Amino acid sequence: MSNTHKNLVLVLRDAIKNNQFDHALAAIEDLRSVDLADVLEQLEPTLCWRLLERLPKRAEVFRYFEPEEQVRLALEFPRATLAKLVSEMPADERTDLFKRFDQSQRDMLLPALAPAEREDIRKLSAYVEGTAGALMTSDYAILKKDMNVAQAMAYLRDEAPDAETIYQAYVIDEQRRLLGVVSLRDLILSDIDTSIEDLMLSNVVSADVADDQEDIAKKIARYDLLALPITDEQGALIGIVTYDDAMDVVSEEATDDMHKSAGVSTIIGSIKDASIGLLYRKRIFWLILLVFGNLFSGAGIAHFEEIITANIVLVFFLPLLVDSGGNAGSQSATLMVRALATGEVVMRDWLYLIGREALVALALGCTMAAAVSVLGFIRGDETVALVLALSMVSIVMIGCMIGMSLPFVLSKFNFDPASASAPLITSVCDATGVVIYLFIASRLLTDLSGVPV
Amino acid sequence: MSNTHKNLVLVLRDAIKNNQFDHALAAIEDLRSVDLADVLEQLEPTLCWRLLERLPKRAEVFRYFEPEEQVRLALEFPRATLAKLVSEMPADERTDLFKRFDQSQRDMLLPALAPAEREDIRKLSAYVEGTAGALMTSDYAILKKDMNVAQAMAYLRDEAPDAETIYQAYVIDEQRRLLGVVSLRDLILSDIDTSIEDLMLSNVVSADVADDQEDIAKKIARYDLLALPITDEQGALIGIVTYDDAMDVVSEEATDDMHKSAGVSTIIGSIKDASIGLLYRKRIFWLILLVFGNLFSGAGIAHFEEIITANIVLVFFLPLLVDSGGNAGSQSATLMVRALATGEVVMRDWLYLIGREALVALALGCTMAAAVSVLGFIRGDETVALVLALSMVSIVMIGCMIGMSLPFVLSKFNFDPASASAPLITSVCDATGVVIYLFIASRLLTDLSGVPV
Repeated sequence: MSNTHKNLVLVLRDAIKNNQFDHALAAIEDLRSVDLADVLEQLEPTLCWRLLERLPKRAEVFRYFEPEEQVRLALEFPRATLAKLVSEMPADERTDLFKRFDQSQRDMLLPALAPAEREDIRKLSAYVEGTAGALMTSDYAILKKDMNVAQAMAYLRDEAPDAETIYQAYVIDEQRRLLGVVSLRDLILSDIDTSIEDLMLSNVVSADVADDQEDIAKKIARYDLLALPITDEQGALIGIVTYDDAMDVVSEEATDDMHKSAGVSTIIGSIKDASIGLLYRKRIFWLILLVFGNLFSGAGIAHFEEIITANIVLVFFLPLLVDSGGNAGSQSATLMVRALATGEVVMRDWLYLIGREALVALALGCTMAAAVSVLGFIRGDETVALVLALSMVSIVMIGCMIGMSLPFVLSKFNFDPASASAPLITSVCDATGVVIYLFIASRLLTDLSGVPV
Repeated sequence: MSNTHKNLVLVLRDAIKNNQFDHALAAIEDLRSVDLADVLEQLEPTLCWRLLERLPKRAEVFRYFEPEEQVRLALEFPRATLAKLVSEMPADERTDLFKRFDQSQRDMLLPALAPAEREDIRKLSAYVEGTAGALMTSDYAILKKDMNVAQAMAYLRDEAPDAETIYQAYVIDEQRRLLGVVSLRDLILSDIDTSIEDLMLSNVVSADVADDQEDIAKKIARYDLLALPITDEQGALIGIVTYDDAMDVVSEEATDDMHKSAGVSTIIGSIKDASIGLLYRKRIFWLILLVFGNLFSGAGIAHFEEIITANIVLVFFLPLLVDSGGNAGSQSATLMVRALATGEVVMRDWLYLIGREALVALALGCTMAAAVSVLGFIRGDETVALVLALSMVSIVMIGCMIGMSLPFVLSKFNFDPASASAPLITSVCDATGVVIYLFIASRLLTDLSGVPV
């Protein structure tokens, strides 16, 4: 928060306490709603709603408050003020707020709302989180195909105060089935007596209400849409998802995938506000699982105890070799996970990508082998250098193959490919690496031990 | 590519070879530009441009071709066709295409363009990649403050065919300084004789031409903008960045950060089309660096050689303990890197977050210590169990502190916090973990070895 905004909080607090609302409103006149929300969040709840009540664009400001802050404030509002505010909110955000209320708050609020709004909340809140239904709004502009441009413009002027966007209007029939889409740009460029039927684009890109929000965002990005119409099982138009919501989804889904890539189960909400208990629960699962996973590496080492004791120099290179497989494998896995998430790569690309990855891994492995064998020669002898070089190439190649394949395998069995996290890949590659390294060492160091070096 | 689209490729190939262009155009009539681009990319270049030439929305389709495909096709186009197509492209995409051409292609194309277009390309291509300047387009709608609504609408109707969006129009003075912004929604809702000066919003959110594209995208998302006006050092309006470009930036930046989190240097372009050489170069740097980093772990182990030889059971638990620090640390680092990237967390939150992380780490460490000490007891004795428990708590806590702090430290010294990758954290934590574990073991196992257990 900037210093200007900090001063503004002090000014507002004084003005509201002294009932100087004109002064307070003048001080915030030039602020954008989202910035104003940041400022008002710093005020005490009672002061905040006394100002909000007098603010014409209160619903617009309130929607930018942090979710927890919205609920906290709502508790302080008189019922009539809250009902008025809630009525003025866009349908999708009204529903999100309502879902965050507990039962007693819901029971308190519902009777104060208009029947149509109650019904709207009931319908919208029934959709599963993460689907198009939970993301869409029911405030959209519709047109009939037998209107002309003049009628359509007049109609949109009437609808504009409520609709989320009037830049795209949807043409529907009596069963609310989507017939076409008309942009405001096309409307103002056309003669006023052109019929909407002639003007509309009939191949409308739309999505099903049960579709995943990630697919909704991808569609909006692919077709550069301002809004995507959402239809129910009968093909009837029931809502739209706008580009700004899609943009938030792109960012949220990327956050989820990044967290998963580090073995953190998905956290809902802000890291900064997450409780210690929540952070603990979201992290402990993978950590404990990996503890047991790493027992395999331990078992591998125990199995080759004799060769280690006889050639203690091997231990020196153990972390280096074993980690290299995990590192190269994590790179492969992350490249794949992200490419699958953005839709750049699909299942049937698997064979081609695996083939190419094998070549990349060979090149990586040989370079790393060259580096490590020099170290081996310095610290050991030619045989040790040879053991290290052979192990490095094998370990890196197998690591890359595991890293590249695991996201596809998970995806194939309908798991989230992002679960192929760096720690998981590292653990799998560690165990494999230990066995490969010590196996190669046991063969070469035994075979060559009689040969003068 | 769907089967319908595959069949369409065959139909088009036949039709174009037989000069049945009406037939070809009818077959693709209902396709969206981006889908049509997917289909046309499958055709041989000569066939493709013969069809494109006859397509009214050719520029709209061409912009959706893959960048490499655009360049490949451009080579096959007759110069006049190419110049025509390039003129019809939006200014920002025309410049992107031009930047991908080699010098001979540029020399060939430039003389065929109008002087204004040449000047526009020259200006736009001067901006550094990754800044607002490289992202913006110069096709935007402007208004004068002394116009009224009727004049403004008439003006926008004339400008509409060229401007990237007419839903937002910018009011500028003689020095092209931004005075305000007017939305088409407000225009059509106002009386036709309202003056633009009265109607415009004067606190325009804008950005500087040198601003990072990530900040541009964040601003567009924060203020839910359709377009963000970009000004030069003198405050003159020189372009706009639209929401669809911002959405691509959000996705690209997330991809970059994910790649970095796995120790892959940033790859420009598509993974699928990247050459083996490029993939190799982007991955080898960190892999080699980490090989040398892991020497520290090896040195740590070598230092404690005696205690290992005397208590070979320690080796069994080595990978498990050491990896746990890296895993917990990677979780912390990834949570921080992403929170810094989305702007949810800023530098001054550091102390608060570190304090909370210490508590989370303690809880995680104790749980993991409980799990591992049971294993230690089964395989060893109480002393081993104690060594493992103490080591686990220390290693996890130190791992989390390193993971949480490194992104902040990198950010402080103006490095990208995303460079605090999982492999890097793992290597640092491995070396620390080896020393902690073997140090604790050497103290306890020596001290207690005389005590009957």
